[in-house]
Formats: sequence, C-alpha cells, structure tokens
Amino acid sequence: MLRFDSDYMEGAHPAILARLDENNLCKMTGYGEDEICTAAKEKILAACDAPDGEVHFLVGGTQANATVITALLRPYQAVVCADSAHIHTHEAGAVEAGGHKVIGLPGKDGLLDADTLDAYLARFYDDPTYMHTPIPGMVFVSHPSETGTLYTREKLEAIKAVCVRYGLLLYLDGARMAYGLASEASDLTLPDIARLCDAFYIGGTKCGALFGEAVVFPKKDACPHFFTTMKQRGALLAKGWLLGVQFDALFTDGLYGRLGENALRKARRLRDIFLARGYTLYAESPTNQQFFVLTNAQHRALSEKLGYVQFGRIDDERIIARFVTSWATTDEQLDELERVL
Amino acid sequence: MLRFDSDYMEGAHPAILARLDENNLCKMTGYGEDEICTAAKEKILAACDAPDGEVHFLVGGTQANATVITALLRPYQAVVCADSAHIHTHEAGAVEAGGHKVIGLPGKDGLLDADTLDAYLARFYDDPTYMHTPIPGMVFVSHPSETGTLYTREKLEAIKAVCVRYGLLLYLDGARMAYGLASEASDLTLPDIARLCDAFYIGGTKCGALFGEAVVFPKKDACPHFFTTMKQRGALLAKGWLLGVQFDALFTDGLYGRLGENALRKARRLRDIFLARGYTLYAESPTNQQFFVLTNAQHRALSEKLGYVQFGRIDDERIIARFVTSWATTDEQLDELERVL
Amino acid sequence: MLRFDSDYMEGAHPAILARLDENNLCKMTGYGEDEICTAAKEKILAACDAPDGEVHFLVGGTQANATVITALLRPYQAVVCADSAHIHTHEAGAVEAGGHKVIGLPGKDGLLDADTLDAYLARFYDDPTYMHTPIPGMVFVSHPSETGTLYTREKLEAIKAVCVRYGLLLYLDGARMAYGLASEASDLTLPDIARLCDAFYIGGTKCGALFGEAVVFPKKDACPHFFTTMKQRGALLAKGWLLGVQFDALFTDGLYGRLGENALRKARRLRDIFLARGYTLYAESPTNQQFFVLTNAQHRALSEKLGYVQFGRIDDERIIARFVTSWATTDEQLDELERVL
Amino acid sequence: MLRFDSDYMEGAHPAILARLDENNLCKMTGYGEDEICTAAKEKILAACDAPDGEVHFLVGGTQANATVITALLRPYQAVVCADSAHIHTHEAGAVEAGGHKVIGLPGKDGLLDADTLDAYLARFYDDPTYMHTPIPGMVFVSHPSETGTLYTREKLEAIKAVCVRYGLLLYLDGARMAYGLASEASDLTLPDIARLCDAFYIGGTKCGALFGEAVVFPKKDACPHFFTTMKQRGALLAKGWLLGVQFDALFTDGLYGRLGENALRKARRLRDIFLARGYTLYAESPTNQQFFVLTNAQHRALSEKLGYVQFGRIDDERIIARFVTSWATTDEQLDELERVL
Repeated sequence: MLRFDSDYMEGAHPAILARLDENNLCKMTGYGEDEICTAAKEKILAACDAPDGEVHFLVGGTQANATVITALLRPYQAVVCADSAHIHTHEAGAVEAGGHKVIGLPGKDGLLDADTLDAYLARFYDDPTYMHTPIPGMVFVSHPSETGTLYTREKLEAIKAVCVRYGLLLYLDGARMAYGLASEASDLTLPDIARLCDAFYIGGTKCGALFGEAVVFPKKDACPHFFTTMKQRGALLAKGWLLGVQFDALFTDGLYGRLGENALRKARRLRDIFLARGYTLYAESPTNQQFFVLTNAQHRALSEKLGYVQFGRIDDERIIARFVTSWATTDEQLDELERVL
Repeated sequence: MLRFDSDYMEGAHPAILARLDENNLCKMTGYGEDEICTAAKEKILAACDAPDGEVHFLVGGTQANATVITALLRPYQAVVCADSAHIHTHEAGAVEAGGHKVIGLPGKDGLLDADTLDAYLARFYDDPTYMHTPIPGMVFVSHPSETGTLYTREKLEAIKAVCVRYGLLLYLDGARMAYGLASEASDLTLPDIARLCDAFYIGGTKCGALFGEAVVFPKKDACPHFFTTMKQRGALLAKGWLLGVQFDALFTDGLYGRLGENALRKARRLRDIFLARGYTLYAESPTNQQFFVLTNAQHRALSEKLGYVQFGRIDDERIIARFVTSWATTDEQLDELERVL
Repeated sequence: MLRFDSDYMEGAHPAILARLDENNLCKMTGYGEDEICTAAKEKILAACDAPDGEVHFLVGGTQANATVITALLRPYQAVVCADSAHIHTHEAGAVEAGGHKVIGLPGKDGLLDADTLDAYLARFYDDPTYMHTPIPGMVFVSHPSETGTLYTREKLEAIKAVCVRYGLLLYLDGARMAYGLASEASDLTLPDIARLCDAFYIGGTKCGALFGEAVVFPKKDACPHFFTTMKQRGALLAKGWLLGVQFDALFTDGLYGRLGENALRKARRLRDIFLARGYTLYAESPTNQQFFVLTNAQHRALSEKLGYVQFGRIDDERIIARFVTSWATTDEQLDELERVL
Repeated sequence: MLRFDSDYMEGAHPAILARLDENNLCKMTGYGEDEICTAAKEKILAACDAPDGEVHFLVGGTQANATVITALLRPYQAVVCADSAHIHTHEAGAVEAGGHKVIGLPGKDGLLDADTLDAYLARFYDDPTYMHTPIPGMVFVSHPSETGTLYTREKLEAIKAVCVRYGLLLYLDGARMAYGLASEASDLTLPDIARLCDAFYIGGTKCGALFGEAVVFPKKDACPHFFTTMKQRGALLAKGWLLGVQFDALFTDGLYGRLGENALRKARRLRDIFLARGYTLYAESPTNQQFFVLTNAQHRALSEKLGYVQFGRIDDERIIARFVTSWATTDEQLDELERVL
C-alpha cells in the first residue's frame, strides 16, 4: 500500500547506511567517547554557531525531552507549553514521571504565543497563593510544531523575552527540525535557535537517520553531568558511535538541509495533487505534514488504498486526514498517488 | 591497536546489516507493531518455550532494567541483588531514579547465592521494625554475571524457591545471554530461564546486534500496559522494526547460538595464550570475559599495545585486567595477540 | 481583625485539647500502633459501615492525597479530576512529583460530572494512539468541592458507574467532610462514600482537629503495605497517638457532626448578613464557604476591617471574595461582622 | 509497664501545651506565615549565630530528610552516609523514592569518619567509569547518631574539609540534637553546626515538642523555593503556627537545653543502676540511649516488666537491649526501675 502515515517509516538515507557498513567492524570506544562522535559534535556546533556548546546524542524524542527536562528543572518547577505539545499529549506522562507538572496553555495553530505566555505568567505571579503551585521553570516549544507550523525568528525572540523576564529556560523540540529549516515560511536558523534556547534537539529519526536525536546545550556548562543523567534515564547508547556516524553524515556537505528540502518539495506536490482533485485543506502547513478534510465516504474509500493518519474529527461527517512526506519520498510515489486518487 | 576492552565495540553481524539494508526503504508501521517484530517475537517465545509470553524490544540494558523494574515493583518495594550487580554499581542510580532502593547482598564470584538470600530475608522479616524499610519485592540476577560467571539450573531453581517462599519476583539480566547459553559450564537453557523468571531480557547489543535487548515476560499478562510504560521511560523506539529485524535475524537458523559459541572458543584460546606465556588467571571465568593478574610493569608495557580494561586493583603492585572476546573476534586477532605478547 | 479567611485558622476543639492534655505523659507505642488509634479506627469504620476496611491517620491533606494516589496507581496511570481540583491547582505538583499526570476536565460548579467523565473516557479509548498517553487509572473528587459545592448520592453513583465501566478507582478528598455531611443540600452519607469509593479521607485539620486526616480504604486489602508507603512519603507520624486521640474525640458522641453543623449554621447567618446589606452572592454554596461579589471600592473598604480571601476576579471592577466559617465560629463574631458591615 | 523504649513516647513539655492552649482560638495565618513562626525562626537563627539563614518547620524526621535531600540534590547525585544512617536503614527508601541513591560507607560507632569518606571519594574519582554511577553530592550525618554517639567539632570539621575538597554538601540530621548539645562528650555547638553544614535540622519530636523539626539553611538563598518543595512533598503544615509555638517555647529561656540535660542526667543514673546490678554495657554512649548486653534468660525476665527495644543480637545466647531516657524521664521512674531490677 502507498503510505504517507509518517516520516519515520523508512530506515536511513543510503549515505548513512554506507557509513554504518564501513565502520561496522572497527573497534570503537563506547558511550559516544569515540572520534566520530567528536567530529559530528563539532560539525553540529559549527552549524549552530555555538562553539562553546555541548552536544549529546540520544536515541529518541521522548527520551530526549524527558532527559533534558529532568536535567534542567528543579523539583519545584513545571514546564509550560502549548496544549498541543507532544510532551503534554503523546509522551505517556514522561515529564510527570520525572516529577514535573506540564502546564498546557491554549496554542495558536500549534504554536505557543508570547502574549499568551506573558499573560499566563503575569496572572501566575499575581496570585498570592502561587507558592502553593509548581513554579514555571521552562518553556517548551516544538519547531516545527506537532501540526507542522513554524515559529518565525520574531516569534521565538518574543517568547525568549518573556522567559528572560520571568526567569524561565527555553527548550525547543526539533524532532522535525530539517523540515522547519528547509521551509521558506520561517526565517529561523540554527544559529538563531542556539542563540535563543537554553537547550534544543536536532531530530534525526524523522529526518534521514535510522534513529537518533542530537541534544544541544548552546551555552557552556549549562547542564553539568548530563552524561550521568543520560545513563540514569536509559538514554546512553553503549555504541554511541552509531549515533555519531549518522549525525556526522547528516552534517556533512549539507545533507541534513537537502533531506529537508526534498520532503518539502514533495509535500507541496502532494498538496497540489489533492487540491487539484477538489479536496479541502484543513489548515495551511508550511512543512512536510499536510492536513485535508475528508468526508466519511472519502475516508472509507481512500483508507483502502492509502496509508495516512486520522488526525482528528471535525464533525460526524468529516475527519481530518494527515499525509506526511519525508526525506525519502519520491516522485514515483507521488505519481502513484495521482493514479490512486 | 588490538582491542579486547569490551564486547560492544563492533557493530552488528553482517547478516543483520544485510537485513537492515534490505528493509531500509520499506515503509514500516511504527513502535514495534510491524510484521517483522511479530515474527521475531514468535521466534523468541518459541526458543523460550513460552507460548503465552510477551516480548518487547528495547534499545539498551540500563533502559531495559530500569523500565522492567519500575513496571513490576510497587512504590514500597526494593530490589535485591549481589553487590556486584550492574544495577547497583554501574547504572547511574537508574533504579533509584525510578523510586526503588537497591539492596546489595554479598555475592559469591559475582553470583547471588540462594542461602545468602534466604538468610537475608529471614533476618529481614525477623526484625520487628521491617515495615519501616522498603519491602524486598524482586530479586535481580545477571546471567552471565558482571564477571562472566554463570548460574546453573540448580542454583537458579534454589533462588526461585526462596523468591516463592517470600513473595518476590525473579528478574534476570541477560545482557550477555548468548555467552551464557553457549558455555558448557552451565546447564541453564532459555526455557529454564523462562520457567523460573517473571521477567528477563535477552541481550542483543553485546551479542551480535547493532543494539537492542528483548525483554521477555514468560507468563501471560504479567505486566499490563508495558507499552505505555516503555513510552513513558523513553524506551519505545519509533522505528521498532529496527529491533525486530535484528532479533529476527539472531533467532533464525540458530545465529544467536553460533555467535555465542564463537566468542567462547576465542576466549578459551585467548586464555591459553596468556597462560602459555606465564600470566596468572585472576579467576576462572567460563564465558567471554577473561581476567588476568598483571604487575604494574606488565600493565604499563601491555597497555601501550593492547586495549583492555583495568577491572580492579589487587594491591600496590598488581592489577586485574579484563580481556573480552565477542561474536566478532577472529583468529587473526588472536594470532596478532600472540605476536604482541 | 475579624477574620473569615479560612477554616484552618484556629487550633482544636477544647474536647480534643483536653484529651491531648490528659494523655500527654502516658508512654505510648509509636507510629499509630497504640490502643487509642485502634479505638479511633474502629469508631471511624463503624461510622462508615465498613467493618472490613482499613484506616490510617496522616497529618495533612496534600500529604494524604499524594500518598494515597502514589500507593494506588501504577506508573503508567494518570488521575482524572475537575480542573478546579486541589491536586491540580494548589498542591504544588505533588501528584506529578509522585510520577503521575493529573488530567483536569471542565468542572461544573467545582464538581466533576459523570457525563463529562464518560465522554472523556469514550474519546480517550477511541483514539488509536491512546497507548502513547498515560492511562486514566483513578478519578479524584473533592466533597465538599474547593468551592463548597456537594455531590449528591446520585451524582457520585453516576461517577462510580463510569469508573467501573472503564476500570478506574474512585478517590474522594474529604478535607471539609464535616461540612458536607452536615449540609442538607446533599444526601450523601459516610456509608455511601465508603460503598462507592476505593479510598477517601475524612478531614480533621479543617473540621475541629489541631491537624490530621483519616484515610479510609473501605475494602479489605485494598492497599497492601500502606504503612511502609506512608513512612516513605514522610507521612507517618512518630507519635501517631496524637492523631488517634483527636479522631477518637471527633468520632465520640457525634462531635464531628456537631462541629459541621455549627459551621453551616454560622455560614447561613453570615450569608444573610451580607445579603441583607445588599451584597451579591457570587454563587450559591451549601457549605461553610460563602462567595460574594465585591466592587473594588467595597473590597478596599472591607479588607481593612475584615480578613477574607480574594478568590478571583470577575472583571476590572469586581472581585470574588470568599468568607469561611468553621466549627469554631461564634455568634459573637457574626454580631461583630454585622457591626463592621 | 515501666517503659524506656524510646524518646518519642510522651507528648510535649507542659510549657508547650500551655502555649498551644493559650493560642488555640486565636485566628492565625496559615502555612507558617504567622508572627509566632517568625519569632521562633529568629530565636533559632540567633541560637545558631546564623543571622542570614532560613528556618522551616516540618512535622517529622523522615519528612525533613527526604524533603531537604530532594531539594538540594540534582537528579544525578547520591547521598553518602554511614551504613547505620537512618536514611539508609529505617526511612522506607524515602530518599530513593525521591530519586537518589544512598551510599552507605562502613561507620565507626555509628559515625562517619572523614578518612573513610576521603578514601571512598578518592577511589570513586579514580575509577575511570565513575560517570556511569551516581555522583556523590551530599554527606549525611546524624548527631547524635542512631546509636547515641557524637561528632566532635574536630571530626565534623574534618568531614567538612573532605566535602569542600570534593564538592559535596554537608547535611546533619539532628533528630536528637538536644541530647547531643547537652552532652559533655562533644564540644560541637549549634553555631559550629551552622558554620559547617549546608543544612541541618533541630529535632523537636524527640526533644520535648509534641512533634516538629526545624530545618535550618544557615546560608542565605541556599535552597530557593523550599516552601513550594515542602508543599509538594506533603511537608507543609496548614497550621504552621502549631510548630512555631512549640519551637518558640523550646528556644525561650533555654528550655531546649534544659530538656536535653534532664535526659542525660537520667541516662547516667539508668546506666549506673544497670552496672551496679552486674549488667554489661554493650558500648559506651554519651547521650540518652544506653545499650546493654542481655542473656536470653535476662531478656525473657526483663521484657515482662520493662519496655525497651531489642536493638540487635550478638549471638544465639545474647541480645543488645536499648534503654532510652528523655526530657520527660523522672527520678520516680528510675526509682521504680531499681525496684524492678
């Protein structure tokens, strides 16, 4: 079946598999303390324009979020995010399992708005009983968001300003970072993100790697003993070089950027294919996730021939369908989509 | 440099890499709900003679231990193990981070002894204040142990009997399971382990896989909602099929067994090479880890030419050196070792 | 200043102080294993018509909630409540610190509605990705609620039916239980609560005791080793008899009931006093908390002479003021209130 | 029965009860933000010669230990103590429930020795794999220790020096502080403790109060938002003034000191009574706990007439019996002990 369910359905870009193959029987020092990891970290810091920063490779996104949040927050602190944030909706309570409350504020198109945040924090500190509640210690944003939308530089700077005013850290989940960086809808660059955030991760799993996320602390000494925290949270890979090899490949010769661009090009064509056949967009999305309105009848018919996700339900008659392209989507697949539709 | 530091220095057996390659661009359902995972789980349950059991694939050992222990224990319970157990010494407090005390009892050659356990539990319940202490809820054993020693069927049955008497679960960490199963020093089989343990894991990372551990609950419904617990602990791989493919390969045509046998054959030859040159064994070890006594002078000389681990120190003059073979160790490497020595 | 801020401003009913005095130098067995505790527990179980139940005395409400919820839930489970529930708003993330997500549903007048709960759970299990989110394991209700409203027997039975249908436990926070039981607005009795709930607590701190809450598990063996869990959570009082003495006094000769009745009588008079002077009720409240609308000017004037809580803000011009009576409120205090107003 | 089981068997010193009575119906601000608490805190800081410090009142010892340790440690850190330390042996895994490993080092007479600590830390950092284990972040000592022994100023200074060298915090559990301060066997004063420790608590429960412990952070801003952490851990008493009143009384006119002295005077007489009758001391103890060797026959006979604790067993024939005096022990009770023996 022709599938557009998700961007983590394929393995890795062939260049990455080749690098894994090539190093397969080299005897490598464990736990990311090998030379390939070191090289990959340098390339990432260079791309982020954060020479004093620190990079750690973790296996998955929930793991990265939970480990970083646990490492940076004190027990009395909570993390604030849009109510659609992955940590609030789909990470099985991982943040709470680490002891912290997640406070979901109403989002706008999947994004957290600086004004909403500001108003919330003003109200929070205006309440004389605030000391009986967890103290907001971190803002969590996803870029791209869970619905494929993007922060602009201005928006993230506005959020940062609120964070500074109220003493919160800013953390950015970049599970689909490649698709955000490649979009013309946002001017936010990796160096911007590194300048504005206290921590963020650059997603590999959904962006061309077999698996893996690169957590970046752009400032020196921002998170002491993170290695031990990773180990404690089950997030330290014995064969850390597997992650190093992948990120080294992704950050060599602009591969990460090109993979993002492919997905976006294909997403635009997919969007056009649907629109040309009279389907309705549910919402504009500038990245690799496209959302369409399907009637129940359309849904029944399409779901027999196509793989996609029922993202939600509008009313008894209509659903929201999510179609996702990726670094690996080909024009042949879209040709077939045209035939199927 | 010729290295025998560890059994997680290489990547994966070529058959596994081939399978990854072959499936790389197939679009696979996420989170281990694909057909390859299903097939691999069936092969593992068959090998364990546990048709009603449940298998879950996790990425690493600390992660597997912490997730299973958290999932099976209640807040008031502690886990009991030999004082050399990995969860007590080298997992960065992962079990405690999940809220549980680890109680280390004096081990014998790295193994927990049923009599020691029995005496401890008798004394525990004899203390009228025991309710002020965490209640022992699980026994943790490693097979092979951290120093390469093995439980026999009789020993594990004796431990199980104590567990039953005092109401404890039995959990076995099989990070190096292949090397235990291949050893003639123990008659313990996978079906024995499945019969005696409430949970255990079959190690992939150190036994031929790129990464991955297969957690087995041999009894039906032993651990409800473990999927959600995995997700919460950052232990659920989006591309679960990566793990399925590897374990499917390992449990096809007896590959897992053959990989274990290779390591043991090479370990015996390595041992012979050292003994033939007058080195002293620190302790007999029936698996793929070999321990020798080195004088400081020997250590200085050897460490320039060979990779190995200083496992401990006997006195001011002598250290314990650990040399490890693996599924990937070749006779050429041992030939070279002979030359170096 | 004449104060109606709260119902925990005074110490204890004189009968309780007398009992403390009387036993002060008796040498008592520690940790609640004394005869007075045993007697008090029997009286409470008799009042609950729950002869097989178990009672434990804890010091405070947040402590009771966090300890019970931790003890009863498994790591993958969340607790569901009205969004105004104390555990969600004012317990400093205690439930999350124990590892569990709190899911706040829209409340009606401070109460959780069975239909709202039912719809939420139906939607929850209808979502094919629900296994990626914490599984609802418990419903939390407060009776009286945080705004003084009450469940009727019918309402609590309806919630219980939903709990049974979806496999959730039902837990009731009775911090102000005396004021609920004394109200004619609800027909819910202690035996009803014991029949419907898996756990609940009968509040002492706000209902005539110096401090203390009686946690009741009405069914046998509902929560093994709760003693050890209490100890672990810092909720086990060395001099447990201090709690036993107080609850024994409260449950002797109907004192607990009479204290509740006094507060309600005084609350009705307080309400009448305000209404007679033209103040507006914010909402009807059938228990000891009364809510009035004050203009900013009224608020400025009153707050100089009276102690009360600004419970919220309606708009730029008006606030909600909370006045609370208690077991200790006297007619003399209300006479003075009349003079002040 | 004449009982010497413990020092928490009686209620409170009459002066404390009188103060509670006197304030019983005063309407007091909640959560320790009343004037009596403020006054009590000032008296304690004056007694500690720590004018910039911070005091918080908690209800019990396990609660105080767990809350302070959680508040001060980061997730990757462990707490180091003598293997007889209460947090390691009798607090139901409260520290682990907060996520931290407890590392018990061999104690000497119940005390942690600076040399033992130093050697442990030197070895710890000498191990190249130390980053795979929890990082020691705090030293925990009890003064008096669990067996009634005492640190001298010199000993605590030596421990502090090691802490400074390796970057650990120093925390002191003073559950029986009054009995340590009153002993001539140690020159350690409250100002010494405040100078050397990052946090400590002054015990009330066992030293004349109904209940309560005063946690002191002698340095400014040592533990931000501890109020919220207390609330989160169920350690914030609504009627905080109950604790303030008690500590205010204890730190007025030297009452705390006098209560300690009474217990020690009575302990010396109790010791003499036993020795005069030919009983053998198990160990010298300079505070209010006295340990004797009893044969099984003696134990059988005495336990019918006297309350005490079987603290341990020497061999099949002999046990260790603990007899405890307190602030409330009278000469009449010891006269009766003489008659009974």
